[in-house]
Amino acid sequence: MTKIAVLIGKDFEDSEYSQPAQAFKQAGFDLVHLGLKKDEIVTGKKQNTPVRIDMEVDAANPDDFDALLIPGGYSPDNLRAHKGPIRFVKHFMESEKPVFAICHGPQLLISAGKLEGRKATGWKSLTCDIKYAGAEFEDKEVVVDGNLVTSRQPSDIPAFVEACLKMLEKVRDKAA
Amino acid sequence: MTKIAVLIGKDFEDSEYSQPAQAFKQAGFDLVHLGLKKDEIVTGKKQNTPVRIDMEVDAANPDDFDALLIPGGYSPDNLRAHKGPIRFVKHFMESEKPVFAICHGPQLLISAGKLEGRKATGWKSLTCDIKYAGAEFEDKEVVVDGNLVTSRQPSDIPAFVEACLKMLEKVRDKAA
Repeated sequence: MTKIAVLIGKDFEDSEYSQPAQAFKQAGFDLVHLGLKKDEIVTGKKQNTPVRIDMEVDAANPDDFDALLIPGGYSPDNLRAHKGPIRFVKHFMESEKPVFAICHGPQLLISAGKLEGRKATGWKSLTCDIKYAGAEFEDKEVVVDGNLVTSRQPSDIPAFVEACLKMLEKVRDKAA
Repeated sequence: MTKIAVLIGKDFEDSEYSQPAQAFKQAGFDLVHLGLKKDEIVTGKKQNTPVRIDMEVDAANPDDFDALLIPGGYSPDNLRAHKGPIRFVKHFMESEKPVFAICHGPQLLISAGKLEGRKATGWKSLTCDIKYAGAEFEDKEVVVDGNLVTSRQPSDIPAFVEACLKMLEKVRDKAA
């Protein structure tokens, strides 16, 4: 089964988790929620959507997952204050498997030192950070560069999910 | 009277506003709270400390202030999604008047393009952003570089306030 790691922490942007998660599950993909503490319930910053952490990110092996989803909100900044999430993202980006980051999600890619030379987008407050990190910032609803899919904000979710699913289907077809 | 602009938005780190603000007022300095909307009450992310915005930042003239305080929390990232706060910080940094930024405060300095070649510190999640922005990151409780004072986190507040007050006293002495 194609397994997607969801890297998530407190105060995530609810819709940027719940809508892609629902679409991925409906399409038959398996989600594993990685966070700072196993069994912790983290909540979204607007609707308090609860998410139970399935596995501590420090205990997770990037090789066990086929793709990575990083929802936005304050979650990425909270996670990147710790070494484990940065290490996981770095390793995952090096594997060249699909990485989906929306809104503040690219903050984790910056801290992992993995945006250099990439095309990417993100929440407007990060424009400067993304450029300084060596990426080409594109103000578009979705930017696909190799295995990296990025979007700016909740209103981009339909385009984001479409691009992610397209990539996930390819992974599943290859494995079949 | 020596006037300090406090650039503040929702979900600021309570202590990083309230403790410096109290110390500055006690020392006889005047505070003017600049934000996105005049008369809006913005609150801290932990204790819901209320702060009334005295003046819309778009209507504020940096020349009317002697120093700038930027508390941390989620406030700097919320503010830098708008042009006004970035423009104000850019202009202020160019004036070479004292700028005090703690925790996530340096995010506004990055978006203003004003950290290049400076020595600075900030909340650990920003380490990468600060370095990419061209600054020399120092993991110290307070870093003073010219008129720029930066600190990392709430536990640094005593050292931060001490360095700020030292600089403010100099400004007051000069004006006297």
